Parts: sequence; structure tokens; C-alpha cells
Amino acid sequence: MEEFGHEAGFVPAETARDFVDALQRPRRLMIMVQAGAATDAVIDEFAPLLESGDMIVDGGNAHFADTRRRETALRARGIHFVGAGVSGGEEGALDGPSIMVGGSKEAYSSVLGPMFDTISAHVDGEACSTHIGPDGAGHFVKIVHNSVEYADMQLIAEAYDLLRQAGQYSPAEMAEIFRTWNKGRLNSYLIEITAEVLSRMPTPAGRSSTWSPMPPDRRGTGRWTVQTALELASPVTTIAQATFARAASGQPALRTAYRPLPGGMHIPKSRSEAERFTSQVEQALYASKVIAYDQGFTMIQDAALAYGWDIDFAAVAGIWRGGCIIRAAFLDRIRTAHQAAPDLVSLLAEPGFAEEITAAQVPWREVVATAARRGVPAPAFAAALSYYDTLRADRLPAALLQGQRDYFGAHTYRRIDRQGAFHTHWAHPDRPETDV
Amino acid sequence: MEEFGHEAGFVPAETARDFVDALQRPRRLMIMVQAGAATDAVIDEFAPLLESGDMIVDGGNAHFADTRRRETALRARGIHFVGAGVSGGEEGALDGPSIMVGGSKEAYSSVLGPMFDTISAHVDGEACSTHIGPDGAGHFVKIVHNSVEYADMQLIAEAYDLLRQAGQYSPAEMAEIFRTWNKGRLNSYLIEITAEVLSRMPTPAGRSSTWSPMPPDRRGTGRWTVQTALELASPVTTIAQATFARAASGQPALRTAYRPLPGGMHIPKSRSEAERFTSQVEQALYASKVIAYDQGFTMIQDAALAYGWDIDFAAVAGIWRGGCIIRAAFLDRIRTAHQAAPDLVSLLAEPGFAEEITAAQVPWREVVATAARRGVPAPAFAAALSYYDTLRADRLPAALLQGQRDYFGAHTYRRIDRQGAFHTHWAHPDRPETDV
Repeated sequence: MEEFGHEAGFVPAETARDFVDALQRPRRLMIMVQAGAATDAVIDEFAPLLESGDMIVDGGNAHFADTRRRETALRARGIHFVGAGVSGGEEGALDGPSIMVGGSKEAYSSVLGPMFDTISAHVDGEACSTHIGPDGAGHFVKIVHNSVEYADMQLIAEAYDLLRQAGQYSPAEMAEIFRTWNKGRLNSYLIEITAEVLSRMPTPAGRSSTWSPMPPDRRGTGRWTVQTALELASPVTTIAQATFARAASGQPALRTAYRPLPGGMHIPKSRSEAERFTSQVEQALYASKVIAYDQGFTMIQDAALAYGWDIDFAAVAGIWRGGCIIRAAFLDRIRTAHQAAPDLVSLLAEPGFAEEITAAQVPWREVVATAARRGVPAPAFAAALSYYDTLRADRLPAALLQGQRDYFGAHTYRRIDRQGAFHTHWAHPDRPETDV
Repeated sequence: MEEFGHEAGFVPAETARDFVDALQRPRRLMIMVQAGAATDAVIDEFAPLLESGDMIVDGGNAHFADTRRRETALRARGIHFVGAGVSGGEEGALDGPSIMVGGSKEAYSSVLGPMFDTISAHVDGEACSTHIGPDGAGHFVKIVHNSVEYADMQLIAEAYDLLRQAGQYSPAEMAEIFRTWNKGRLNSYLIEITAEVLSRMPTPAGRSSTWSPMPPDRRGTGRWTVQTALELASPVTTIAQATFARAASGQPALRTAYRPLPGGMHIPKSRSEAERFTSQVEQALYASKVIAYDQGFTMIQDAALAYGWDIDFAAVAGIWRGGCIIRAAFLDRIRTAHQAAPDLVSLLAEPGFAEEITAAQVPWREVVATAARRGVPAPAFAAALSYYDTLRADRLPAALLQGQRDYFGAHTYRRIDRQGAFHTHWAHPDRPETDV
């Protein structure tokens, strides 16, 4: 109070009671503490002091299932519990973040919405804050946001590794490549800062960088997203590979065991080949990024169906345009696509994106093939391409699994030409297939 | 009783009390009901009727965390709770399964071990049953077994798809290829039945099969494995891709949206090229299978460390040699490798496997590159190769992520040449790096 009390109308409070008594009604408490037990402890301390109509906003990175549980419990006591995902990093804290708000529409419309709109980032005069849906919808969209951020960062890291190893560029040259890319369709905060980071990367003789690998993320939101995707049967493969890439980099004993094994083929590139390769990497990065975002949006669609949320996908893309780490020109196009077709199943069903992917597919394939042959690890690029080819396939080899499972477990199989479940008597070649 | 009562000394029981009273002491109850609430309900019904020293064996596919909870609760009441993973399918039910037993060593040594040894499958006179470790260790190893099975099946399905699409073989020709492979190092139950299944695959004109794709696995053990791997930061990428492949095949709306998009490059193969390709696919399948098993064993190692289990890895490989779906000649070699080096960090640290992977790596790369260029979805093959290249890498691009995270969130980074955590003042190019 002595140092900063003059900056706004702060009121000091020594106890929870003092704090609650000092608030205008309906009270709006915002908590940002560690996810899990700490959040429950704060709620348990304050909830008994509140009255019907008061609101608790959890602005931390809670698991959306916890938020759903807390919202139900507090609703029974007349208290609005609002899980709000806040993204922005250091800059967002100063200039306004992107805010993904859950909880009741009533709490949002009456008092919280205008407050969040004021403190959030703004793009073209629009606030990067919206009511996503009831109960845990805000925190759910926040974990998807974070895991799309993981995927984006991993894809950029793989592009950097391909340029470094297959293109043999120096950090300064790569900084320039990313700076150029940032003027095009890849324009985004993450590409911008990658150029900055590369331009100041410490590079002692013979080393490409002195930075050590990323520690694994055991407690994080990337993990929650992939775990939840498995519940929902949402195939977020690129996001999963990005999450596991961090885990792999934190396995020193395994890395020591694998290190002596031979690498890929040495395929030197001339300067003009390297330039052509750079343009292929841009295509592959863009196509993979579209897939990563499509996986994130598909997962939100699957969750909306599972949890009964009515989500405005254009609004989700809209509030990610500013404040948060994944802010990008690209999100404006995703917003437009969803505005034009609110039932859009996939970004690739939108003619503009479909056209770009069609143009990018051959170079994208060449980059994934080059990574495989050269021995450059590109798990997220490869997963994005496999995802594209899996969903594009007229027939999947998974059909063979139906036969295998019927063989060893009499699980039966379905046919594409007839209704019903079928079983083959594998041990008796003369017995006909049975319609079970 | 009327129909089968004469087959053994069955005693009918009308109530839980009758049933418990009819058993010899210490009582051994074995339950195989649905995982979750149903298992708890059966335990709640019978536990109050039992005495100290009695045993409840859960032979179903329980989540190991539930088994840990139940074991702790029943131990407090003097009852041994033994989670036992049982694998075998239809054939295992008749000829003996593979049994992965958890719970107390005491319960196993005194009465359960000999019983399980009798009913399990046998290989070279050895029972496919062992005490894996305390509490949930048996059920944990069972879910890893199942997910390795998923990976094995997915890899075989991808090999089939590559032979079919890039090699343009008919099902009958592919059956012959798998039959040949089954005589070599790939010898296993799954390869054997794949040949059988392919030889009887219904193939109407112009269609490679009439079977429909695999439905997703929402409740299954594959999901539990990948979710748990994320908790443990174990990078089980090939297993994860196999699990997500089933999820992707169960997304009809997405598949309709992606289907019109263009496929890969058309690269016709002559007959001799196809034969060479077939041998490359065998190498890729073998190398990817080694990686999938290595991921499974790594995850068991990570769990052993996290949960305080002392696991005999040679014994785990030993009991998977018979009874279960993944039974294979290959597991004998894994057992030998772990017997020779009980602290083996990875299969690839064993000279024999290292030599084979070294010989396989170039064809393996060619197959992954061919899949990418041809547009054949091979997510598990690609993930296995990326895993190999990730762990083999001297420097990972994840180091760049440290720089990005320091830029946007002042998360600091570590250096490989100095101790400590460092921060760059990105907005001030003239300020030196800070040692935080």
C-alpha cells in the first residue's frame, strides 16, 4: 500500500472476512493460484463468506473437469463460479491478454463481460475476450490453446532443425529466413520472436547453440489436452507429438543409449538447392500448422458434443488473434472461414485453405521424406502429413485390424457392403462367414 | 450344475455368504467383471465377509491406479488384493493365458503363484506367469502389453497398406509375403494370423477388402497407457500413434471433409522394384517393432521408478512369449538381453539389436520417405523413425524452445556450457545475458 497504493483505489484487507466485506455486491473475486488443491483451498476459505449472486473467477490454468465440478458445487449455493482461461505471457500481463471465459452466461453478460473486455487485448477495436460456454468450456478452450501453442513451437523448431541440418544455414541466416516468412502467410508472434531469438543465439565455435534441451512438461496443459483427447477419441496427433517431443528431450539415459546409433544419409545440397528446400520447408510448416490448428478445433467440436456446449468457433479464433502467444494473421482467416460456414467440420473444407494445402502437398511430402532420409527428427511434421493422408484415405488399413481381432478374439467385424456384424470361422476353412 | 457340474468339483452358491462359506481358508476369490464401479461393487459385497489372510484376485483389465487404491484399502483390513492382468483371447482361455500378477509377494509365493503357473500357458516348460511387483504393477504391465499389441497391429496394418498401395500386391500375394516373413525374425502370432486373414479376405471387384474401418477405442487400455505415459513423461510415440489411428478411423465427418483433397505422387514400381520394396518394408516393420517394444519397456522402467516397483524385465519378456496376443520369437531375444544386462536402459543398447537396427536404418528411411511421397498413411512407422532420430540426436531443436519461452514468458533457459539459469533482455539488445 505504501509503495503502490496511490496507483488505484486499493483497499487493504488483513483477513478473508475483511476482504469480502470490502467488495461491492454482487462480489467478484478473482483467484489465480496453483491448479488443484490450492485452488480448492482458496474456494473453501472464501465461499462460506459469500452470498447468493456473488462470483468467483478462477483465472488460473485449471483442469476443465475440476472447473465443472466446482461450478456445480457452487451453483447449488447460488454462487457463480467462472473458470476463465487467460493467455498472454509477460507482454499480455502489461498490454492485455486473451481471455476465454466459461461459467454462466448470466454472470458474463451482467458484470464480468464488460470488465474482461476492458482488460483484454484488442484487435481492430474488438476485445480478445468472449464467453465460450458454460461450466468448464473456458478452461477447456484454454488447454487446447496451450497445446496448439506447443504444436506451433515444435513445428517451428523442426523447421529450424531442417534448415540448420539439411540446409546448413547459420543462425543469422535462419533469422533472416524467419523474418522473411513473417512477412507472408506465416506472420505470427511466434515466427517473429523466433527470428529475434535466432539473431541473438549464442553460437560458440562448432556448436549451433549453447542452449540445453527443453525439460519435460509433467504438470502442464499440453498433457491435459492429449489425455482428454484420448477420452474424446479426438486424433490430435501433431499436438501429441509436440508434447512427447518435450518428454523425449528430458530422457538423458535413453539419449545416451541411442546416441551411438547411425544417422541418416548424407545428402549435400548446393546453394540453389538449399534455397529451393527453404521454400519447401515454408510450405511444409504452413501445411502442418493448418493441420495442428484443425486438430485443435476438431477437439473443441468433439468436446462441445460430449459436454453439451454451444461454441462459437469464429469467436474462439477471434479472441486468439491478440494478447496470446499464438496470435497470428492466420487466425483472422480461420475466423472468417467459421463466420462464413458456422457448421464447418474442418478448415480443409474451406476452399481457401483447401487450395493452399493442395498447392503445398508435394513440397510438404518432399520435406517429410527429406527429414526421414537425412535423419532429422521431425515428428510433428510427419504426424501432420500422416494425419492428412489418414483422413484423406478412401480405405484405411485399420480394416485389417477388424480381421485380426475377429481371428484372435471373435470380436466380429463390420462390412462396407452389408449391414450387421460378421464372424469368420478361421479354424474351419469350409464353414461360411456367419452373420452374427 | 446340471449340464457341467460333473466336469469338476463345483459347489453351487446362492448368496455371497454361501459362496464365501464354501471356500477353503485362506479364501481365494477371483473376479473378472467390468473395470470401474462394477469391480468396486463386487469388492464391497464380498470384502466384509472375508477374514484376515483371505485374497481377492481381480483378473479384469483394471486401471492400475484403481488397483493401487483398492490394494491399500483392503490391506488395512488384512485382505490381500491382487490385481492380475490376464492376456490370451479366445485361444488363451482354452490353452492357458499369460498372467501378470501384482499384489503382495506373500500372497503370490504362498498360494497364488502355483495356481497361476498351472493355468497359464507354458513355453519350453516355463509358465507364462510371474509376480511383477506390488500393488498395481501387474495391471500396469498388462495395459502396456495391450498397447504394445495395438502398436504391433498398427505397424502390420501399415506394412500391408504399403504393400497394397506402393507394391500393388493382391491379398493372396500379401498373404504369401506375411507367411514368408513369419519364418524369419518377425515370427509371431500376429504375423501368422495376418497371413491367414489376408488369405481369406473378401475382395469384391475393384475393392481391396469389404471390411469397414476400426471403431475408436474410448474405454480401452490403449488410452490408459498413453494417458499414463503423459503423467510419467515417457515418450511412447509409436504406441500413441497406433491408439490415435483407431480414433481417426472413427471420425466419418472429418474423413468426408478430407477425402476430396489430393493424394501423393504416383510412382509406379516395376516387379523387381516391388520385390526390393517388400524387403525394405520387412526391415522397416522390424525396426519399428523394436522401437514400439522399447517404448513399452521404457514406460515400465519409468513407472517402476515413480511407484517404487522392483521389476524383473527379463521375466516380463519371458511371460509374454506364450499365451498372449503379442507372443513372438522376438520376445525370447528381449528376455536374453535383459538377463545378460539387468540394468539395460534400452533394447538398442544391446549389441544384437543395435546391429540389426544399424543394418535396417537406410531401408527403414526409404520406406517412411516412400509413404510420405506416395501418400500412404504410415503414422506409426513415421513416429518410430522420428523417435529413433530424436533420441539419437546430439542436439535437439527443443533447445530453441528454451529461447522462445524466455522471450515471451521470461522462463529463463539453461546452457550446456555453464551451470545456472539464464535470461536474455530481449527488448534491450545492449544489455548482457543475466545469470538468474
